[in-house]
Amino acid sequence: MKKHNVILQPAGRHGQVDEGTSVRSAARELGVDIESICAENATCGKCVVLIEEGHFEKYRVDSKRENVSPITPQEANYFARRPKLLKDKGWEVGQARLACQCRIRGDVLINVPEESRGNKQIIRKSASNRAIEIKPAIRKYLVAMTPPNLERPIADWERLAKGLETSMALARGADEKLPRWYDLTIDYQCLRKLSATLREAKWNVTVSVWRDKEVVAVQAGYVEDSYGAAVDVGSTTVALYLCNLRTGELLAAESEMNPQIAYGEDVMSRIQYAIEHKDGLEKLHKAIIDTLNKLLKQAVKSANMSLRATATLAPDASAGEQSPLTDDEIASGKERPRTSSPQGNDIRIEEILEMVLVGNSTMHHILLNLHPKDLGLAPFAPAIHKSMNVKARELGLNINPSGNIHVLPTIASFVGADTSAMILAEEPHKQDENWLLIDVGTNAELVLGNRKRLLCTSTPTGPALEGAHVKYGMRAARGAIERVSIDEKTLEPRYKIVGEDEWNAGKAKGICGSAIIDAVAEMFRAGVVNSRGKFKMGLESPRIRQGESGWEYVIAWADETSIGRDIPMTQQDVRQIQLAKAALFTAARTLLKRGGLESPDKIILAGGFGSYIDKEKAMLIGLIPDCDLSNVYAIGNAAGDGARIALLNIEKRDEIDSVTRKVERFELPTDPEFQNQFMLATSFPHMSEAFPHIAHLIPNRVADPMAKNFMK
Amino acid sequence: MKKHNVILQPAGRHGQVDEGTSVRSAARELGVDIESICAENATCGKCVVLIEEGHFEKYRVDSKRENVSPITPQEANYFARRPKLLKDKGWEVGQARLACQCRIRGDVLINVPEESRGNKQIIRKSASNRAIEIKPAIRKYLVAMTPPNLERPIADWERLAKGLETSMALARGADEKLPRWYDLTIDYQCLRKLSATLREAKWNVTVSVWRDKEVVAVQAGYVEDSYGAAVDVGSTTVALYLCNLRTGELLAAESEMNPQIAYGEDVMSRIQYAIEHKDGLEKLHKAIIDTLNKLLKQAVKSANMSLRATATLAPDASAGEQSPLTDDEIASGKERPRTSSPQGNDIRIEEILEMVLVGNSTMHHILLNLHPKDLGLAPFAPAIHKSMNVKARELGLNINPSGNIHVLPTIASFVGADTSAMILAEEPHKQDENWLLIDVGTNAELVLGNRKRLLCTSTPTGPALEGAHVKYGMRAARGAIERVSIDEKTLEPRYKIVGEDEWNAGKAKGICGSAIIDAVAEMFRAGVVNSRGKFKMGLESPRIRQGESGWEYVIAWADETSIGRDIPMTQQDVRQIQLAKAALFTAARTLLKRGGLESPDKIILAGGFGSYIDKEKAMLIGLIPDCDLSNVYAIGNAAGDGARIALLNIEKRDEIDSVTRKVERFELPTDPEFQNQFMLATSFPHMSEAFPHIAHLIPNRVADPMAKNFMK
Repeated sequence: MKKHNVILQPAGRHGQVDEGTSVRSAARELGVDIESICAENATCGKCVVLIEEGHFEKYRVDSKRENVSPITPQEANYFARRPKLLKDKGWEVGQARLACQCRIRGDVLINVPEESRGNKQIIRKSASNRAIEIKPAIRKYLVAMTPPNLERPIADWERLAKGLETSMALARGADEKLPRWYDLTIDYQCLRKLSATLREAKWNVTVSVWRDKEVVAVQAGYVEDSYGAAVDVGSTTVALYLCNLRTGELLAAESEMNPQIAYGEDVMSRIQYAIEHKDGLEKLHKAIIDTLNKLLKQAVKSANMSLRATATLAPDASAGEQSPLTDDEIASGKERPRTSSPQGNDIRIEEILEMVLVGNSTMHHILLNLHPKDLGLAPFAPAIHKSMNVKARELGLNINPSGNIHVLPTIASFVGADTSAMILAEEPHKQDENWLLIDVGTNAELVLGNRKRLLCTSTPTGPALEGAHVKYGMRAARGAIERVSIDEKTLEPRYKIVGEDEWNAGKAKGICGSAIIDAVAEMFRAGVVNSRGKFKMGLESPRIRQGESGWEYVIAWADETSIGRDIPMTQQDVRQIQLAKAALFTAARTLLKRGGLESPDKIILAGGFGSYIDKEKAMLIGLIPDCDLSNVYAIGNAAGDGARIALLNIEKRDEIDSVTRKVERFELPTDPEFQNQFMLATSFPHMSEAFPHIAHLIPNRVADPMAKNFMK
Repeated sequence: MKKHNVILQPAGRHGQVDEGTSVRSAARELGVDIESICAENATCGKCVVLIEEGHFEKYRVDSKRENVSPITPQEANYFARRPKLLKDKGWEVGQARLACQCRIRGDVLINVPEESRGNKQIIRKSASNRAIEIKPAIRKYLVAMTPPNLERPIADWERLAKGLETSMALARGADEKLPRWYDLTIDYQCLRKLSATLREAKWNVTVSVWRDKEVVAVQAGYVEDSYGAAVDVGSTTVALYLCNLRTGELLAAESEMNPQIAYGEDVMSRIQYAIEHKDGLEKLHKAIIDTLNKLLKQAVKSANMSLRATATLAPDASAGEQSPLTDDEIASGKERPRTSSPQGNDIRIEEILEMVLVGNSTMHHILLNLHPKDLGLAPFAPAIHKSMNVKARELGLNINPSGNIHVLPTIASFVGADTSAMILAEEPHKQDENWLLIDVGTNAELVLGNRKRLLCTSTPTGPALEGAHVKYGMRAARGAIERVSIDEKTLEPRYKIVGEDEWNAGKAKGICGSAIIDAVAEMFRAGVVNSRGKFKMGLESPRIRQGESGWEYVIAWADETSIGRDIPMTQQDVRQIQLAKAALFTAARTLLKRGGLESPDKIILAGGFGSYIDKEKAMLIGLIPDCDLSNVYAIGNAAGDGARIALLNIEKRDEIDSVTRKVERFELPTDPEFQNQFMLATSFPHMSEAFPHIAHLIPNRVADPMAKNFMK
């Protein structure tokens, strides 16, 4: 395979890549992330790069535009639909290329403009401190046996099982229904190690039993603790919580970007990728499994660092001199003799005996290596709803190979195991009041009800609420505007950038979800747009102008940005938000109507997005139905909380399996009034009757004859 | 790696082997099997080969004795202990070598003498026609579903499970306790294929359910049959029975030598091999798994040939023209569309959904990849008694990967799953009479009792009864003498050779187990030896002479053999048999005494050995206790029968698990009277009081004052 020199500026990364590699792949290989939303379909244009010409002495390279593949028809089409793009940016034809389309054919120097660069997202998810009753699947029992002798050479397993029966009965008391020794089982891979362990341990072992029936680990001597991991696999972020299964203590929380983003930003692009590529599913599956294995190692490492820090404060801290475990040691899972040194109490990765995984239906399928194809095609049926128990070794997860991986149930096509986890965390099924739970993302999942009845639905809200499909939209990463307010009189904005403490400080790169909602709400409240979302004519402000695709409102001027261009909210951007919020609102209204309710008693916004939006402004644009604002809560990563709850309490697993079987599912497009409701809901609330709790904020309030229809 | 030319005569096999390869390995590589009993310890001497010198034009090779490694101390010791061997055979020092010790260092021509050649054993095991009630673990149900639609896009698994609940209830009736749909589970690897299968099948599938709870296969359309395999893994022979799980019909019976013989003839040598070699267990395990996979393919092939032969007789036989399945197709398990042609009904290997395995404790451990180390060291504790269920994919068995492998329980150190299978086949636990079951091999397992109580024990009988450790002993292979009788007056013998129809016909190579018992019994009856096993002095016969190691009786003269040497029974050979039969008899007597019995009501001899011995002669030498000869039965491969019963009837699995838990185990060496009893039992029965049923055969009957002791 021929190799070529590739230099990436301004990062200064360089190296050799294979002939034919796409510029995006080449950049990834050389450690530079380039944005992508459209799954390399040449439609989003987020990956524009510049192929520079000339001799670059520093790298001893002659870069020519002919050293990359010619413009593809898809690419030509992308640029043809944006005739002013090249001129505005001062780019030449053939210089600006889509990194996903153009392939390396010779030595090149490539410039990656600021707006095309991918950034490691700031991850705000963190485990809550919810109290969880500890009833783990794994329980440990010390079993001391008499060694076999010629009078009673009974087999190792039976010797252990009989001792275990006694230990379980002693530890758990007479009330508990425990199995007899001959009904206990042992995991096959655990059995393979049994005889050697019993003899090394001189017949004195700690036995880990899964759900009071299957032995999954046998350790020498007395061992008090074992560990578990709860994981929320989001489309964007993967968050892992390492817990002590005896105490429930959270030992480490680690997160990473979901590496599947390389194959498509949203679930639909990933499903498409899996359909279109022969090894697509395999790649997506391997990517997430590798990340989980990496997170497991990281979590064990940070937990051990904290444990050692604590141990150092203890009186006997100086006892041990042992070196810290290396990554290789952790990965190989080799046992080190335990000592009284701080390091001697290190958690080893094979002591992780269970994991609970949650994620939306697509993440759920890819995790389990189930093809997500049918999730992407009407009628969008998942492969399975029921919760699953799969051995760690079957999935290639590097905890103890005999450990169990529990995956929470999915509820409907786009109401996944993350929603099950959210229900488990918030418990609407135990309330007298009617609660509305909303997890907002590219897709929104909604659950409404109380102890008598739960209804759920989902709706595609599009990526606008997360910053995509909005001209300068981006994820909540460094450089993103996250808050906007507009002065009603001057129509001048103020904004706050992620990572900056002060307002109007820093250089903006784009605008993220929470600020998009702020901006639209403020434009409506300040009267820049009317209740139909149209720019009002005749307003005096340099911020309001005709842009290349119609009217727009400039939030940041070019010199306040890191991309050297004005950052406006355009008429099209506002339209995107109207469509997204109409979808969400209609879904909520439909559930309320099906539940025979006027409004919910409480609204709970889950997920990172919910934590950062301004609830008053969300209601002002009609993203959520009317409700006393003091009863609107943002609860952060409810899915992660739910996963932890299921990890630490097996009764909760049975509970959520049973609850999800009874949830009533509604598919919106089949609702006869959906289209009508949806059209009505695209307007901003100008009807104080429908939104009494924010009526005071609504400009130019009218008594709208359609208000009654709207609420039906 | 340097290569050398190796020629093996008289087979004429030749080829290149790596420098340093042992002659035995080199021979195996070139397709010539060389005998071995002692696990390459240079003690059995069964592998003597001759390194020839000279230029061999045909192979263009200069063979020199220096082209193999020098004589090892072990080897020198072997030859030193047999000073007359070289002279008798006319071999030179350095010419005769042990193939296990001597290694290739250059080009050589090697002569393999007849007695060192391994032969493929004649396998006489075959499935009995015992009636088995069919209650298989796998049941099939046709499930027709309505496809998902937007109104009810319920997941594929739940759609199937609900349909399955209905189909199961219809098929099984109201009486049966069947699970609700939400308690059904699906094997993970089966789930992975579910969505695609349901859609290809247009929502009309046949579902295979394991033990009324776990779905293990989903096939398009209506499929009536699935298949299972029962396997008896003997130390010497592996026998596989392919059955239709619906009808119980036996479709094919295949057998092979156990390839582990290459690593040691008996279980102890194999345990030793596993202990001494780092990858020893891995090799032994892989060898048997590979053989099982080969047998599975062979069985499917022969079953399909029979099925096609039957189909050809049917009126529509000419309909199909499809070519037979190739081995690759069978191995890959790829589906072919079913047609009405004979080939269209071919069994495919992935339609095998369950296997039941039995074997002695060592075979059981190696099969399950459990280290057999502790079976070889006092107190000889197995890893597990309980029956096991392991997924086919975990063991690398190439049936349907979701299929279950059921392994019957072991009972004690040397009373393995084959004994469990024997009990299941013969059902002593359901009798009023007291039955004594004996499986004779290198090790003998004995079970005694009735519905109230079962006792078991085992005893090493040594390999003498199977022809090893006897000077000209061999397995029951072609060329083996299998029957002997001696004229009381002339003391002239008659003999019959395996594979010959006539007596005194063919060329003898050695003497196998059944003939060894015949020979000893006849020597005793004819008065060649006395009741203590000593050669009588002063008998006039050219057959009786002083051999190199003491007195011997010649059964075949050199010119009647293929090895060019006389085949005698020596004083030492008789001694070996005395020790073996004393062990077996003492074990039986001990069980009888523990059971408070004088004699069993019935004696059942299991295994190939039992089928070929003359029961009268076995009793005459005191191999089995006294019993009415019409109540002594040889039942052939009871272990294989038991495996088939467990394959076809799940209730039998639960039954044998429960029966084996209650069996009382006795370890003989711990019995205080064992040594005393054993010494008494080495004599041949000369006490008519103790053996009334064969009293008429006993020569020089005496009223022995010890008879009473003997029977206590």
